[in-house]
Amino acid sequence: MIIDTHGHYTTVPAGLRTFRALQISNLGRPKKTAVAISDDEIRASLEQGQIRLLDERGIDLMIFSPMASAMGHHFGNALVSRHWTEVNNDLIARVCRLYPTRFAGVCALPQSPGVEPRACVEELTRCVTELGFIGCNLNPDPSGGHWNDPPLGDTWWYPLYEALVALDVPAMVHASATCNPAFHTTGSHYLNVDSTAFMQIYESTVLQDFPTLRLIISHGGGNVPYQAARYRALGLMNKWEPFEAVLRRLYFDTTVYSVEAMEMLIRIVGVDNVMFASEMLGGVNAIDPRTGRLFDDNKPCLDALAWLTAGDQRKIFETTALRVYPRLRPIVEARSGTERTSAVGGE
Amino acid sequence: MIIDTHGHYTTVPAGLRTFRALQISNLGRPKKTAVAISDDEIRASLEQGQIRLLDERGIDLMIFSPMASAMGHHFGNALVSRHWTEVNNDLIARVCRLYPTRFAGVCALPQSPGVEPRACVEELTRCVTELGFIGCNLNPDPSGGHWNDPPLGDTWWYPLYEALVALDVPAMVHASATCNPAFHTTGSHYLNVDSTAFMQIYESTVLQDFPTLRLIISHGGGNVPYQAARYRALGLMNKWEPFEAVLRRLYFDTTVYSVEAMEMLIRIVGVDNVMFASEMLGGVNAIDPRTGRLFDDNKPCLDALAWLTAGDQRKIFETTALRVYPRLRPIVEARSGTERTSAVGGE
Repeated sequence: MIIDTHGHYTTVPAGLRTFRALQISNLGRPKKTAVAISDDEIRASLEQGQIRLLDERGIDLMIFSPMASAMGHHFGNALVSRHWTEVNNDLIARVCRLYPTRFAGVCALPQSPGVEPRACVEELTRCVTELGFIGCNLNPDPSGGHWNDPPLGDTWWYPLYEALVALDVPAMVHASATCNPAFHTTGSHYLNVDSTAFMQIYESTVLQDFPTLRLIISHGGGNVPYQAARYRALGLMNKWEPFEAVLRRLYFDTTVYSVEAMEMLIRIVGVDNVMFASEMLGGVNAIDPRTGRLFDDNKPCLDALAWLTAGDQRKIFETTALRVYPRLRPIVEARSGTERTSAVGGE
Repeated sequence: MIIDTHGHYTTVPAGLRTFRALQISNLGRPKKTAVAISDDEIRASLEQGQIRLLDERGIDLMIFSPMASAMGHHFGNALVSRHWTEVNNDLIARVCRLYPTRFAGVCALPQSPGVEPRACVEELTRCVTELGFIGCNLNPDPSGGHWNDPPLGDTWWYPLYEALVALDVPAMVHASATCNPAFHTTGSHYLNVDSTAFMQIYESTVLQDFPTLRLIISHGGGNVPYQAARYRALGLMNKWEPFEAVLRRLYFDTTVYSVEAMEMLIRIVGVDNVMFASEMLGGVNAIDPRTGRLFDDNKPCLDALAWLTAGDQRKIFETTALRVYPRLRPIVEARSGTERTSAVGGE
């Protein structure tokens, strides 16, 4: 079983863009209009995109969430953010109902700058208990690059962590677009957010205060593996929990796109805390002239690491995801059942 | 000859801290008071610190600039920043006069949020032409973590680039402290600034508009080597100058503190664009239990790379620095002369 733990619905039908365009032009009088998207449009948006690529690459299922950059938490206000988040999450739920063994839903949260994260608990709960979602994305900087909210170590975030623990779902730390011209969204803001979130956790007591909280740092941890010695030094200088112990409490995805980066990631973070992910149809939508493959076709970067045992690979491709996302299990079991039936039935 | 291209005067005598304390308490009526520091105090501050470590580690000379985090460009206003910058640069000049073959001066700039970088040209010129400095540090975010100024690719910065080119000195991109609680100064802000600066340059036409401008990205480039495939993909998607070509136009220092990071840095950036640096007595002031050495004693991390030829090592330790900092040459020649004299004289 191969699980891609990080994909966004970047190929949404036009109806969702229309909703957002109306929402932006109606700023000041927020109204939740209907989203006109048919099941056929959803199927068409995926079958030439994510599903084709999953099939081509031998990936069984994808953990699937709304377009990250398009969430734009900085835009409008808390109600605007709530409407936009709800329609995005509802659309992911429709995807998961149409393809119950290919996609597992992860929700966006209706974050808004300066608004307490406890305001997201209602939507998180709805998504997990009513829509069958298995986790959420969490944006540490709803301002989109002005960094005006308290860091993740602040008790500001604790009501949300309490809900995550109570629902037994993880949060993947992931920025949205930046509205700050200092940053490029996928080239600097995303990566800054990943590394900054790590540091915010590292210098906090979040992991002690929430011993069962599970957080995923995306995009291979930003700079964490490369700058590991600096982080180790800071931990020693400040008498924080050791860097290695903090790494063992966090999870990292493999959305890096070279063999060397993959190797450094897994060597530093360890095989127990890395989950396979490609973020395909996302930020690196080009063919790598060095390999002839799309950059986000990154499973070969893992396959190239000859020192990974079969057991290591199984952790990275499957079992760690099941540990981090316990609500993923029935979906994986349904997928396994489908595969067995297919094999027997000779699909 | 071994040149450490990145050191700050972190061990300044108390007189400088007193100046700053007065400046902070007198905010609103900026006044440039005298700095009471004797030559003996300067000697004492260095001989048990940087000079002892240079000697122990076999490093000939250090490119030396004011304390980076203490510059605090966000504090006060342009005049406060100018006074503070001047006294810091003057102190570096005194260090270089006392130890003309051990330290080469690099100045801080009197940056201030929202103030045009052209306002820094006067102090840059003074430092290079009157004090004999060989370059400057450049803070892309004078707000200290709120990122309110235009990116480095904006023409906002061009008058400063023109001055750098005219004076034939480089700028090392380096943040100061952050006043934003979202960030840790040395653990996240510094590294975010490095990577963000790279991205700002990458998506701009600065390097084409200033074909002889030389910029150094510090701290091993933040995340650049580790995330190289993402950057390559973005270049292809956006039809920018290829990543590899941009790397060949920029310089990176070796202030990373593990063999693995050193290896990745040099493999990705190439032996022609990396300069040895330790930033010693800086951000990583602890002993690495894995090696028993101070983290910033990082020359052994380079020595461990057996594939580096003697020619490669010479570039990294000496000749690239001479190319990037042409005004360093007489200092290096004086140092060589000193060494020859010492050898003959049997010091």
